Amino acid sequence: MRISELSATTGVPIATVKYYIREGMLPRGDAQRANQSDYTHEHVTRLRLIRALADVGQLPLTRIRQILTLIDEPGKIRRTAITEAVDALLPDAPAREDYPLARATLDRLGYAYDPTFTATARLEMAIHAVLDAGMPWDDEIIDAYGPAVFAIADCDIRRLSACPQEQIVPSGILTVAMYEPVIVALRRVAHIHALDHRDD
Amino acid sequence: MRISELSATTGVPIATVKYYIREGMLPRGDAQRANQSDYTHEHVTRLRLIRALADVGQLPLTRIRQILTLIDEPGKIRRTAITEAVDALLPDAPAREDYPLARATLDRLGYAYDPTFTATARLEMAIHAVLDAGMPWDDEIIDAYGPAVFAIADCDIRRLSACPQEQIVPSGILTVAMYEPVIVALRRVAHIHALDHRDD
Repeated sequence: MRISELSATTGVPIATVKYYIREGMLPRGDAQRANQSDYTHEHVTRLRLIRALADVGQLPLTRIRQILTLIDEPGKIRRTAITEAVDALLPDAPAREDYPLARATLDRLGYAYDPTFTATARLEMAIHAVLDAGMPWDDEIIDAYGPAVFAIADCDIRRLSACPQEQIVPSGILTVAMYEPVIVALRRVAHIHALDHRDD
Repeated sequence: MRISELSATTGVPIATVKYYIREGMLPRGDAQRANQSDYTHEHVTRLRLIRALADVGQLPLTRIRQILTLIDEPGKIRRTAITEAVDALLPDAPAREDYPLARATLDRLGYAYDPTFTATARLEMAIHAVLDAGMPWDDEIIDAYGPAVFAIADCDIRRLSACPQEQIVPSGILTVAMYEPVIVALRRVAHIHALDHRDD
């Protein structure tokens, strides 16, 4: 397809497409003639990924570039690539030696505790903010949230495992980033549903 | 307590405390002497709520003021107050007559569909973004996410119901806003846990 069709399909303006190409984030199209290049379905997929990370993930360009590099690196072990991708999606957290609130929560859930993983630091910050706001974070909540969140994550990973190998990392990144706002919105609708189905 | 102690307890600078008082978001302390006021535990709670909404909820001051007005309105029916509070926490979504993607999802989950509820519009936008990114939103995902998210929401509402009446709305707002980042971080840790416990 031509650049105009690529733009129409993805909703990304032509000038922005050209910018991504100049920045090396999107491969050039196959040169057909002097002033015309041919773009494929892979360009569509790549553009959608970039836009998803920018719009929904609210990620800055430097971080998107970092994620694209991860995707393009060949021969990465699957787990490492996904872990790094999940990490890259998160804003940097202050690095510390230990995250005691996250550790206690993960211990209770029977999860491995890895202080080098950015999500661990984010979990610590999030629980800290809960406590700072004077709200509780106790075993009753952990026991309710833990299995529920695991059911969501397990569904994500089960479906990812069914992807062709070369799709695993980009799909993994989109899975992590794109379903998050759905979960958040769904929880708010579910609050009202739960409220309407109680008798107190 | 004095304003200096209120500031130390909550971590909010004295100048900011004074600003909130001038803006009518925080009640004045009881005047003790010409230059000294007395602040109570209620001031601490209120300040924590404002900071949580500003820092974690990333809400602008106008919206925080709107939420505080909801909280201060006496005699509100509980469901209405909580629904409006959940609504106020969400950024405005373009109002439409119908949200077909959200409607189909809520139908499948057996939830009431209310197009006037902001969370419904946000759900529509979030599912739309998923599809735009070329990712699926199908019955398998709905059937996995739905009950899991409901378990989380039900835990939230069950605990809220145990609050004293006058605490319901502020606690409800903090519950919606403060646990969201925990759920998001927990999902990312759970992804790695799920990945490590599969054999493919």
